[in-house]
Amino acid sequence: MISGKLKSKLAGGSAIRKMFEEGNRLKAIYGAENVYDFSIGNPDLEPPKEVFDALKELALNPVPGMHGYMSNSGYESTRAIIAEKRSKESESGVKVDAGAICMTVGAAAAMNDVFHSILDDGDEVILLAPFFMEYIGYVENHNGKPVIVDTDSKFMPDISKIEAAVTAKTKAIVINSPNNPSGVVYSKELLCSLNEMLLKQDHVIHVIADEPYIDLAYDGVKVPSVLDCFKNLIVCFSWSKSLSLPGERIGYTLVSPNHEDYEDLTAAIVLSNRTLGSVNAPAIWQRVIEKSLYAKVDVSNYEYRRNLLYSNIVDAGFDAVKPSGALYIFMNTPNGLTDQEFADICAKQNLLVVGGKSFSRPGYCRLAFCVSEVSIKNSRKAFFKVAEELGLKHRAEL
Amino acid sequence: MISGKLKSKLAGGSAIRKMFEEGNRLKAIYGAENVYDFSIGNPDLEPPKEVFDALKELALNPVPGMHGYMSNSGYESTRAIIAEKRSKESESGVKVDAGAICMTVGAAAAMNDVFHSILDDGDEVILLAPFFMEYIGYVENHNGKPVIVDTDSKFMPDISKIEAAVTAKTKAIVINSPNNPSGVVYSKELLCSLNEMLLKQDHVIHVIADEPYIDLAYDGVKVPSVLDCFKNLIVCFSWSKSLSLPGERIGYTLVSPNHEDYEDLTAAIVLSNRTLGSVNAPAIWQRVIEKSLYAKVDVSNYEYRRNLLYSNIVDAGFDAVKPSGALYIFMNTPNGLTDQEFADICAKQNLLVVGGKSFSRPGYCRLAFCVSEVSIKNSRKAFFKVAEELGLKHRAEL
Repeated sequence: MISGKLKSKLAGGSAIRKMFEEGNRLKAIYGAENVYDFSIGNPDLEPPKEVFDALKELALNPVPGMHGYMSNSGYESTRAIIAEKRSKESESGVKVDAGAICMTVGAAAAMNDVFHSILDDGDEVILLAPFFMEYIGYVENHNGKPVIVDTDSKFMPDISKIEAAVTAKTKAIVINSPNNPSGVVYSKELLCSLNEMLLKQDHVIHVIADEPYIDLAYDGVKVPSVLDCFKNLIVCFSWSKSLSLPGERIGYTLVSPNHEDYEDLTAAIVLSNRTLGSVNAPAIWQRVIEKSLYAKVDVSNYEYRRNLLYSNIVDAGFDAVKPSGALYIFMNTPNGLTDQEFADICAKQNLLVVGGKSFSRPGYCRLAFCVSEVSIKNSRKAFFKVAEELGLKHRAEL
Repeated sequence: MISGKLKSKLAGGSAIRKMFEEGNRLKAIYGAENVYDFSIGNPDLEPPKEVFDALKELALNPVPGMHGYMSNSGYESTRAIIAEKRSKESESGVKVDAGAICMTVGAAAAMNDVFHSILDDGDEVILLAPFFMEYIGYVENHNGKPVIVDTDSKFMPDISKIEAAVTAKTKAIVINSPNNPSGVVYSKELLCSLNEMLLKQDHVIHVIADEPYIDLAYDGVKVPSVLDCFKNLIVCFSWSKSLSLPGERIGYTLVSPNHEDYEDLTAAIVLSNRTLGSVNAPAIWQRVIEKSLYAKVDVSNYEYRRNLLYSNIVDAGFDAVKPSGALYIFMNTPNGLTDQEFADICAKQNLLVVGGKSFSRPGYCRLAFCVSEVSIKNSRKAFFKVAEELGLKHRAEL
């Protein structure tokens, strides 16, 4: 009695969800402090003070109609200040105006709005593995076909591989930098080369930049503005991580003023935002954002925990690309083990990870470092024990 | 470069949106107080005090994690108290528990979640005309096919007509009472007969009760609990009208515990809520609802304005079924005029209405009475002038 497509998805379940349940089982047996659960990427910092202050101010000084409908694209004043910020961030002087922006119920709704707006049945969307597993559902919701192209051993896109995957049906490519799950940040040069290749094709290919992690970069790495890199660009943004508001569902879409189909596309996204059921982004969070747009969570705290977890991994003897951003380390499974074999060995030490297969990149596993400092510190011995069991040579003392 | 389906929808535009623009044009010429704009159904009462108090309390006493992720179905405590309320409202003792409920980004997202969960390509959904025009988009978003069945001259469903429209592909029927645009409330007897007919069919047909207006009933009319009427029931609820929170996007789905496919369906809706991009309903509004669930906007205020507008219409000489609920009067176009002809004559008196064609019921027009009392009072002379132009006999003094 439910949709056939959904039935098979329900049967498959979610690998992350399964780890979540395994985690609860282990915590019940060994105590929460003795289970090192790196499986869930739940941003755990509190929102910055500016957010709490703005919410308080709004709650204490209600104005008539503040919880009512507004335009489906959101408040003009909120969109204008975001447009101003994005314009300032562009080094090449790309000017964004409020009309380019549609406020959305987070980046997930933004991506659904965008795919609904651009995809005809069977249109292809290129996804660069490893990628956030939900992308496949987002594309398929709107009758699109995901086309998976692998990145190199440092998780960097290979332009010629991408070009080889382009067909007459290719409608879009998704770019996610800082990347979930690899944590890598793409350089401006790389993104500009990708743009050049795309513009050489004989039809427009939209670049969808999914940017929930844009404010989470470490080691002084600067994430380039995609406005400076791409012509036919659509940004999907969320404050889930930048302001630690994942439960409140607030984000936006932005169409580059240089996009060849700017007028139709901005109108189509607003229409999709309405008909897909969001109607508009929550009014109060649009108002909070307007008051706290330049605030950020304490990124150095995430950086500190990344360092701790990364040291555990490499000191124990494992290999991993050090992430420059986001909330994850995507480490190689050692000794040619499959994801599952490695995850099972880890679980014996109460160490929970998600296999790379869930991100369309087997032979790896993802560890989220947005878990407590204590848990990361205590997990060090578990990493060392797993390494010993696998005959790996430690690179430092326990 | 945008989806072909969207392209044609954008070209068509929205009749209500066009009236909105016409209204702005007229207001610029004649002044806002001299334009009687009944085209938009924007609930204009402020939320009740309990809502403001709850928001203030939350803003002044933040607790860690209150803006973070929760289960995709929403907070257990919020769902439990809603379940309790719905159980109490059932006269036949249907017991709802928290697991039946998934918190959503309003009723529009709820309906998209439901259609995504139940529809396979080409599945049919019966809609009873007149109906809220967005239903067609909601069904088509998920590759379903709307099948329109007319109601009678009092806008009441005709069970035998509905039965005649059932095919092997019929997956669901949408019930909306109090109804937009007609304002009628269906009786318990009628709904139970519909249930009986549906259960006689040789496959399950889901009943989707879209209930945004359930708390807006007048003249002491009691809206029956659909839990007492239907077996294979899915409710889509929103607080947009009950608590006047349309801009905040908060509602829920509820699957009847008697539904034949309860387990799969509740799981599928939560999955759809995630993958369609809502992920979860805004955290803060779930918490506000928990604290103000039994509050309601001042319904008597809407009733008063309904009375004013209804008197204008019938006193001038027009015919309309008096609405027992919702925010609209759905009046007959006189003298066999088409919707457009009648709307044009009204517009000459600065009186803005939406043609019934937009609700799949030509020969009528919808007037929203959630506009200012002054505007409704001042519009009386415009109704009388239109009536005179059409040679109708007044039933009362101006």
